[in-house]
Amino acid sequence: MAFHLLQRDRKGGLQLADALSNAMTEIGHCQQCRTFTEEEICHICSNPKRKENGQLCVVESPADIAAVEATGQFSGRYFVLMGHLSPLDGIGPSDIGLDVLDYRLRQGDIGEVILATNPTVEGEATAHYIAELCHEHQVSASRIAHGVPVGGELELVDGTTLSHSLMGRQKI
Amino acid sequence: MAFHLLQRDRKGGLQLADALSNAMTEIGHCQQCRTFTEEEICHICSNPKRKENGQLCVVESPADIAAVEATGQFSGRYFVLMGHLSPLDGIGPSDIGLDVLDYRLRQGDIGEVILATNPTVEGEATAHYIAELCHEHQVSASRIAHGVPVGGELELVDGTTLSHSLMGRQKI
Repeated sequence: MAFHLLQRDRKGGLQLADALSNAMTEIGHCQQCRTFTEEEICHICSNPKRKENGQLCVVESPADIAAVEATGQFSGRYFVLMGHLSPLDGIGPSDIGLDVLDYRLRQGDIGEVILATNPTVEGEATAHYIAELCHEHQVSASRIAHGVPVGGELELVDGTTLSHSLMGRQKI
Repeated sequence: MAFHLLQRDRKGGLQLADALSNAMTEIGHCQQCRTFTEEEICHICSNPKRKENGQLCVVESPADIAAVEATGQFSGRYFVLMGHLSPLDGIGPSDIGLDVLDYRLRQGDIGEVILATNPTVEGEATAHYIAELCHEHQVSASRIAHGVPVGGELELVDGTTLSHSLMGRQKI
């Protein structure tokens, strides 16, 4: 990309440099949900319609917000951890903003916390830690379902996922 | 493989041919669950311990039995459809053994049917058809959970799976 810009599009390269430098200095974190935004409060948190159902979806990164938004299934607000608990790397509760989350839970306008951290060991541990926090504040906490991905073949699914899928079976 | 056997291991090739021809003539279907077996009744169906919990897991192919067995989470019996409903290809209920299943449900020793057909459109349609059959016989039917596979990253999961995962969230 650098060679292309140097050979063919020096003006475009300067624009790109400008945009990048602007982004680096202007983009901060939303004060409510910690996602990236140029405003004080991001456009999801400041939308009054997203407050109505009282759901708060906890994700690990701003990219996860995009993934959940793409499903069109969720109309509440988000909270971005910007990582996950990892005591060995020295990442504790306050590093992933759980003090901010604690403050938000205390305000009483959140009815359900949906824990959508990654389905990895660290993600599960973080989800359980936050679930404890929710129970302290008498807020209901739920975890997204583990199971077989839609469109796949049963025999190609790994054993752990299949066993979660069997345990989480639902009546029809 | 054929070149290797011709060049290096003609005796092994003959043994392989024998084994294959034996398998083709000797292996039939279990009379109870329709999986491949050399006996009249396969070793899972003839094991009295597997009858105790009254669970019957419906899968599309014998390979799926191996996948579910590998999880170690299931101790009931199986029923193998050997395919799925596909009206356009002329595959109806009796082609996937639903008359045999109907007979088994009528015997009253099955308490729950776990529908573990593939998470594809045809698999879902087949699962719903069998669930109707179970309701006629007052047998409880459940579907394995759809959701994010364990160990993955949320942002790499497809939208349909993620939306199933959100809908199927469970309290913790």
